[in-house]
Amino acid sequence: MLLDAAREAAAEAVGCRPDELIFTSSGTRAVHTGIAGALAGRRRAGRHLIVSAVEHSSVLHSAEPLEAAGGTVTQIPVDRTGRVDPAAYGDALRADTALACLQSANHEVGTEQPVAEVAEVCRAAGVPLLVDAAQSLGWGPVEGDWSLLTASAHKWGGPAGVGLLVVRKGVRFVPQGPVDERESGRAAGFENIPAIVAAAASLRAVRAEAAEEALRLRELTERIRVRVQRAVPDVEVVGDPVRRLPGVVTFSCLYVDGEVLLHELDREGFSVSSGSSCTSSTLTPSHVLRAMGVLSEGNVRLSLPVGVAEEDVERFLEVLPGTVAAVREKLGAPVASEVAREEDVLVVDSLGKRCPIPVIELAKVIGDVPVGGLVRVLSDDEAARLDIPAWCEMRSQEYVGEEPADEGTAYLVRRVS
Amino acid sequence: MLLDAAREAAAEAVGCRPDELIFTSSGTRAVHTGIAGALAGRRRAGRHLIVSAVEHSSVLHSAEPLEAAGGTVTQIPVDRTGRVDPAAYGDALRADTALACLQSANHEVGTEQPVAEVAEVCRAAGVPLLVDAAQSLGWGPVEGDWSLLTASAHKWGGPAGVGLLVVRKGVRFVPQGPVDERESGRAAGFENIPAIVAAAASLRAVRAEAAEEALRLRELTERIRVRVQRAVPDVEVVGDPVRRLPGVVTFSCLYVDGEVLLHELDREGFSVSSGSSCTSSTLTPSHVLRAMGVLSEGNVRLSLPVGVAEEDVERFLEVLPGTVAAVREKLGAPVASEVAREEDVLVVDSLGKRCPIPVIELAKVIGDVPVGGLVRVLSDDEAARLDIPAWCEMRSQEYVGEEPADEGTAYLVRRVS
Repeated sequence: MLLDAAREAAAEAVGCRPDELIFTSSGTRAVHTGIAGALAGRRRAGRHLIVSAVEHSSVLHSAEPLEAAGGTVTQIPVDRTGRVDPAAYGDALRADTALACLQSANHEVGTEQPVAEVAEVCRAAGVPLLVDAAQSLGWGPVEGDWSLLTASAHKWGGPAGVGLLVVRKGVRFVPQGPVDERESGRAAGFENIPAIVAAAASLRAVRAEAAEEALRLRELTERIRVRVQRAVPDVEVVGDPVRRLPGVVTFSCLYVDGEVLLHELDREGFSVSSGSSCTSSTLTPSHVLRAMGVLSEGNVRLSLPVGVAEEDVERFLEVLPGTVAAVREKLGAPVASEVAREEDVLVVDSLGKRCPIPVIELAKVIGDVPVGGLVRVLSDDEAARLDIPAWCEMRSQEYVGEEPADEGTAYLVRRVS
Repeated sequence: MLLDAAREAAAEAVGCRPDELIFTSSGTRAVHTGIAGALAGRRRAGRHLIVSAVEHSSVLHSAEPLEAAGGTVTQIPVDRTGRVDPAAYGDALRADTALACLQSANHEVGTEQPVAEVAEVCRAAGVPLLVDAAQSLGWGPVEGDWSLLTASAHKWGGPAGVGLLVVRKGVRFVPQGPVDERESGRAAGFENIPAIVAAAASLRAVRAEAAEEALRLRELTERIRVRVQRAVPDVEVVGDPVRRLPGVVTFSCLYVDGEVLLHELDREGFSVSSGSSCTSSTLTPSHVLRAMGVLSEGNVRLSLPVGVAEEDVERFLEVLPGTVAAVREKLGAPVASEVAREEDVLVVDSLGKRCPIPVIELAKVIGDVPVGGLVRVLSDDEAARLDIPAWCEMRSQEYVGEEPADEGTAYLVRRVS
């Protein structure tokens, strides 16, 4: 009875029938189960999967077994705000397309996706669309005529260990792997009743205050967007400025080691995330920032929790500029206005140095060549491939391109201003 | 740090290295992940899987995708106490055996399995053994040289939503399906840290009192085993009387509808389970009772929780005989000693009647034929195939066999006493 009541409450929040919704053990599990089941259900159509380039890793990981089994995957690119173009989904649809996936909003930069338009394009071609609504379900239902939907309770402030998978009636779905009689044969194992009940109750609770709280958080994130850009030199605030989640704001700071900045902010009492290559355990820059073509170094993601105090936001804005400046000073980064001598071509050897050192060294010498002159940065850090072009765009310098070097890669930059 | 500490505590309780243990979202998920990964890791050896006939459904369900993919499964039978013979595992091992599975103790009847002996037999053949330790891990580590082990936190009194999977170093293991960087790439998705910490803490807590509490519960279940047999006529207490879990006791009552009995006991404040065909949603008798060849009708499973009060056990023993008698009276079951008239061959038409009616009708007329005479019971209830032979064994009558009838099946019973 508790499970039934939780299912009804969650279905009401999603805008679906209770018998279309199952509970899984996490959002990731919901995505894995949903994609695998939908692909198997459409096996006769083919093995082509469409995803956006900025999906959550659980979606991208789901593509791997498909490719290993001979399927193909098309990644839809995003613009500099992180948004897909619905027409690109239309162009990618093929006769053998089994499934398309699109997040409702991006988890790193907050950009909202045109889900309803993409759903319409997919519906017209008879291809189901799975929407990863992990970031947005607490704020409201997902618009449009989607076929499958996934979400994660801890993202809306509920407990860990509960995900949602919705499969609309009429969508062909064949669960993969061992199943049992639970959750319509789609999620095996003893149901985590206390957590499921808490998940449904918390969803109802956050929804009751969503409209009001969204307005308040939106004002706070807008304040952060504007004030960070004003108070911190050489910063890029990323993500769509308008069509975005209420509580997420992301920016990248030139000449900053993201991990050091995170630690310094943590010391000040602020727990932030980063998609910077410097902070991830794999030293790979965030695939989201990479797909957007924005700067990844010194990346900081703020997620304002529901109910966050305005004072805390204000204190963050007071602390940030000094913290960034201190990190830059330690790294010997150039001051924003520092430009110097005259020369012609210049080689900067940054081999063996990690992000953000190569960009710092480029910035230090760009003024050493005349306008029209070249700087050749040698680097063996993968992040340079992303950050040197981004720096050029921010600094209005021309990124010429890369070429293999004896060691690492040479990145060519022409001074144009 | 919390996750590391929980992993160390759990590993210590299991008797393994922390890096051999991962947390999953349920015991079922641990079994599914463990079996799929071990089978894939031994793909070159072959696709033969050995399981006991009384494994938990999560193990049996795991065999289904293997069979669908062309693999083969051998089920090891059990004796009337529910125990496997280690030699039977030895006989079942083949050159293409990829994996063998055996529970540490049975979840329905409490019988402990000879895990260490079976592990030795498997080890000698170079085949890994996966032990489903869900029922016993709270009571102590699993003895023997097993290769993989699974467990479920809520079974030892911990929270729902946490399972354990242990894969010994050196065991070939290839995780199946999409994975991420979490839990050594073996369990994807955001870790449920609060539940995992609670699981490890509760395991340590129950272990601290396990030896003492096991003695106490063993005395209580022994009391139930003896008193039920004495106070309730026509009852069969099932499971190994000695090598068994401390807190589980199971018995079957002739001429009783298990579901009705459950409801009556629930009304008295006792929440019990049943493996009877009459109570399951599918009307299929428990595969465990079927494999043991014991009576399935009127089946009741008592699981004494840690810390159960002795008074509650006493009250249950006071309430049970009257409750069973009332249920029997409603069904018009024969009184234990009721035997009657004289005839030669007799056909009992029980078509369209559900368990336990066919057995009740058999019992009512067995006295109507002379010693040596036959009763032919016509039934279309699947449970009759299990319960009529079991009744014969309990009543020392001869079960002759079954034959197809115009409708349903005819079961032949010879009166021998």
